[in-house]
Amino acid sequence: MTVQLQGKLASRGDTPLGDRCGIDRTMQLIGNRTAMLLLREAFHGATRFDSLHQRVGVSEAVAAQRLKELVAAGVLTKVPYREPGQRTRHEYLLTEAGHALLPVVIGLLGWGERYAPSGYNPTRQSHAHCGEPVHAVLQCEAGHVVTEEDLVLGTSVDA
Amino acid sequence: MTVQLQGKLASRGDTPLGDRCGIDRTMQLIGNRTAMLLLREAFHGATRFDSLHQRVGVSEAVAAQRLKELVAAGVLTKVPYREPGQRTRHEYLLTEAGHALLPVVIGLLGWGERYAPSGYNPTRQSHAHCGEPVHAVLQCEAGHVVTEEDLVLGTSVDA
Repeated sequence: MTVQLQGKLASRGDTPLGDRCGIDRTMQLIGNRTAMLLLREAFHGATRFDSLHQRVGVSEAVAAQRLKELVAAGVLTKVPYREPGQRTRHEYLLTEAGHALLPVVIGLLGWGERYAPSGYNPTRQSHAHCGEPVHAVLQCEAGHVVTEEDLVLGTSVDA
Repeated sequence: MTVQLQGKLASRGDTPLGDRCGIDRTMQLIGNRTAMLLLREAFHGATRFDSLHQRVGVSEAVAAQRLKELVAAGVLTKVPYREPGQRTRHEYLLTEAGHALLPVVIGLLGWGERYAPSGYNPTRQSHAHCGEPVHAVLQCEAGHVVTEEDLVLGTSVDA
């Protein structure tokens, strides 16, 4: 069982989609391990460079490069701050586009906990109001949970 | 506004999580552009090597390496088939773990269409039953849609 294809997608043969595909564009911008771990820490509330690079466990050079890319992609914004007696520094805050990645980040987390278990106890995600476990799912704007076989893709590619 | 942290996550300071984090393990296994594009084509129903590598637009060598990794990660399974008069070939089918990545893949797609637009008309995802647009969201097992501020993480890390 796979998704349903409509429009040009249904008849594209074996031609590559290239940059027409949003998955491809997203992966080119932010589709690497360090970027996702920096986003994890941003969702955890970390904002400062020292904290971000140490929590992710990469070198300062790698963290600086990836943060620059995340700012360029519009996922983080760099805001100056200054503590008394110190020089001006910058902190990194999630933008609207950054916050919009939460289902992806939690989807990656939930998948890893279930299908790539480690020797550690898994991290559980839960709903503050009812305590039930939380998962990334597909939902339509009418409020229905959408299964793979009821998902229709590609209705307006090149339309 | 960020997620709420409980347990060891709330007081971990700046120590890296490393392999304790499911996001990290997932990204190590399948967190690259070619892997996500191969998954896209698998969800579109492509199963054969020639079709997969051409639709993704990478060389045979790169496609072969990434498919091997996806099989090792348990996301695809390699199944022999044989057409009359031909030698045995293999096709690649999504496993349960592979199908479970659909919200991540659609989350990446939806994000790219909204926040990294191209010059092309966007691909729309819709619900076969009601036609409404489909998005990746967070939902708890009681059926509530969960917002970022109502998401609690880390309730049992090292518990």
